[in-house]
Amino acid sequence: MLIVQKFGGSSVADPARIARVAGRVKKVVLDGNQVVVVVSAMSDTTDELLALAQEVGRDPSPREVDMLLATGEQVSCALLSMALAALDCPAVSLTGGQAGIRTDGVHGKGKIVGVDTKRLVSELQQGRTVVVAGFQGLDPGGEIVTLGRGGSDTTAVALAAALGAGVCEIYTDVDGVYTADPRLVAEARKLDVVSHDEMLELASLGAVVLHPRAVELAKLYGVPLVVRSSFHDGPGTLIKEVGDMEKAAVVSGVAHDANVAKIGLFDVEDRPGIASRIFQELARENINVDMIIQGAMRDGRNDIAFTVSRDDLPRALEAVRNIQHQVGAKGVTYDEGLAKISIVGAGMVSFPGVAAAMFEGLAQAGINIAMISTSEIKVSCVIQRADIERAVRVLHLKFGLEKPGG
Amino acid sequence: MLIVQKFGGSSVADPARIARVAGRVKKVVLDGNQVVVVVSAMSDTTDELLALAQEVGRDPSPREVDMLLATGEQVSCALLSMALAALDCPAVSLTGGQAGIRTDGVHGKGKIVGVDTKRLVSELQQGRTVVVAGFQGLDPGGEIVTLGRGGSDTTAVALAAALGAGVCEIYTDVDGVYTADPRLVAEARKLDVVSHDEMLELASLGAVVLHPRAVELAKLYGVPLVVRSSFHDGPGTLIKEVGDMEKAAVVSGVAHDANVAKIGLFDVEDRPGIASRIFQELARENINVDMIIQGAMRDGRNDIAFTVSRDDLPRALEAVRNIQHQVGAKGVTYDEGLAKISIVGAGMVSFPGVAAAMFEGLAQAGINIAMISTSEIKVSCVIQRADIERAVRVLHLKFGLEKPGG
Repeated sequence: MLIVQKFGGSSVADPARIARVAGRVKKVVLDGNQVVVVVSAMSDTTDELLALAQEVGRDPSPREVDMLLATGEQVSCALLSMALAALDCPAVSLTGGQAGIRTDGVHGKGKIVGVDTKRLVSELQQGRTVVVAGFQGLDPGGEIVTLGRGGSDTTAVALAAALGAGVCEIYTDVDGVYTADPRLVAEARKLDVVSHDEMLELASLGAVVLHPRAVELAKLYGVPLVVRSSFHDGPGTLIKEVGDMEKAAVVSGVAHDANVAKIGLFDVEDRPGIASRIFQELARENINVDMIIQGAMRDGRNDIAFTVSRDDLPRALEAVRNIQHQVGAKGVTYDEGLAKISIVGAGMVSFPGVAAAMFEGLAQAGINIAMISTSEIKVSCVIQRADIERAVRVLHLKFGLEKPGG
Repeated sequence: MLIVQKFGGSSVADPARIARVAGRVKKVVLDGNQVVVVVSAMSDTTDELLALAQEVGRDPSPREVDMLLATGEQVSCALLSMALAALDCPAVSLTGGQAGIRTDGVHGKGKIVGVDTKRLVSELQQGRTVVVAGFQGLDPGGEIVTLGRGGSDTTAVALAAALGAGVCEIYTDVDGVYTADPRLVAEARKLDVVSHDEMLELASLGAVVLHPRAVELAKLYGVPLVVRSSFHDGPGTLIKEVGDMEKAAVVSGVAHDANVAKIGLFDVEDRPGIASRIFQELARENINVDMIIQGAMRDGRNDIAFTVSRDDLPRALEAVRNIQHQVGAKGVTYDEGLAKISIVGAGMVSFPGVAAAMFEGLAQAGINIAMISTSEIKVSCVIQRADIERAVRVLHLKFGLEKPGG
């Protein structure tokens, strides 16, 4: 079978860990599989490079930051290839560009637009394990573009899809997907299987084991994903299309994201095209907007509030202030001290009382809800950041997630 | 004027030095010049990467070492480009491959086979200063190849030649070419001008300011080279074709190389093709052989001795031992404790007594000569390493190099 494996920064943090990863990869090769390994930069490398960049000049251009950061993964893929060779496991390292990862031209937040598998297939046919630098590719002009958050996960899934791999294994520092963050909830339980949709919601909602972009791509191309620990054996969590929805748990897990900021525009003019003007501006700046609330009209004017990642807040505020007058807003407010808590479950769609139970649980704990958003398989509430840990514990208990099949 | 500047690892060792280099480059741009800057890796980076490689696996493949090491220059060129932008000097960094440096496929010791200047010219036309990662290029298969010793100097000269630059400036930690190593000879004098040939000999003979490959390329394409200090201003030393040979000093300088090893094969069969068999084997391993002595025949057998860089000794010994029996050698000896001292001067050719004066100087100081080699503009002697510092001082005095025009 052809297997794509991805190892994150903490798994390749030093030569000893790289050697351990090589040992794991070799075992899979000896079992008769072809293996493509995607690696992140050794942990801390990216931060160290960014610190250097900050020292030489404030606000470096994203194009130059990409030139700089892409070296991190190039180093780790070369080292892992050497470690495999030292175990008599023939290997070759490839930069994102050499591995055929083609991207758009959005530096720092690139998207994969295609994979040219020629070189990969040729190396595999020659019996080599291929080690690919994650998080990067080349744009049509031959410029190095990094993929932003979750870039290495996305690289792995894209390669698995392009090569028709049997499975894409994401190795990380946790041993699977949990019903809630085990650091917050002692009773949190590892899930054996979740659907792509559930994982997508969990990932989007702050369960950091896997980036939503990667899950989305896996869902789109039907790539079976496994999340497992790089430090010890164990089956991990399998993410796949779950056929029998009736059997799915009503609530599979509680996810949270402690880095939420809210921006409000008040007294915005109420005419067609205003909202789209605001969100087009944010999209142009590559800022992801999460929840949006448009308030009740008073005298033909209204308020618009939306949430963004706290990291994006300064840029989002700048973008909004630039167009504040164009949209006739009287003022701009923001709150950077928020968090989001969500419950996710593929079975939720047929149990309409779930959202009410969630609100009740939070209310009983005295936790105020600032914004609400729902989809077929999740309910999310924005609350004060100070309440988030308590909220996770309260809801985990409320939905009986400590019990298998609960 | 179009100027190519090269800054070595110690000139870009940390963010403060990178900022200083950016300031120097900007001044040249403000004077109305177009500038292409070639940078080495930040000092220690290459050693740190090699240390990592050694930890993950002994004897890593040169192809993977190139993947690893090329990141060093990519980091420093991105940082310098950011530092220039911070000074409002528009700049763009390019990897060797992006800058159009095409190489052969000899990993770790690549040779530049051509420069595709399209991207460089386009960036310069758009008013940008181009910062190129030295020491690297792409082979025809798109593989990253590093250029080995002197690779960044060679990159700079190759770019200057391909772009028709007015001058190629090599910035280093010394302020020019001296009559001898100033750390050994207090009276050593900086030369204002030397010919390419003299510089070639000086560089080949251990004057480490400039790699002979770079000088050779500069001579071939008539690129005027300047060696100057990256830490303070000053005209440095200009290396150019010197027309009026009559006026050239008899001896321009004393050079030395403290890292010489000798390998001897004794009782080698005396039949045609034996020497070429030995040296072809060494060439195949990319080992540079310096001096060669073939001893007097006894009974149709003879001894062959040659010198290599001490770094290459282990590989050279292995290569020689592999073919020892094919060439009928009874034994192999080696001595890794040698050094080479040379006197260089374009005027030497018309003064036949120079070599004799050199031997006399060494003899008076009680320094034994193990091997001798001469060319039109230099005489070299291999001596014990322990004698080398004394030998440099003795000859500097003997030829009156402390006096201008001496």
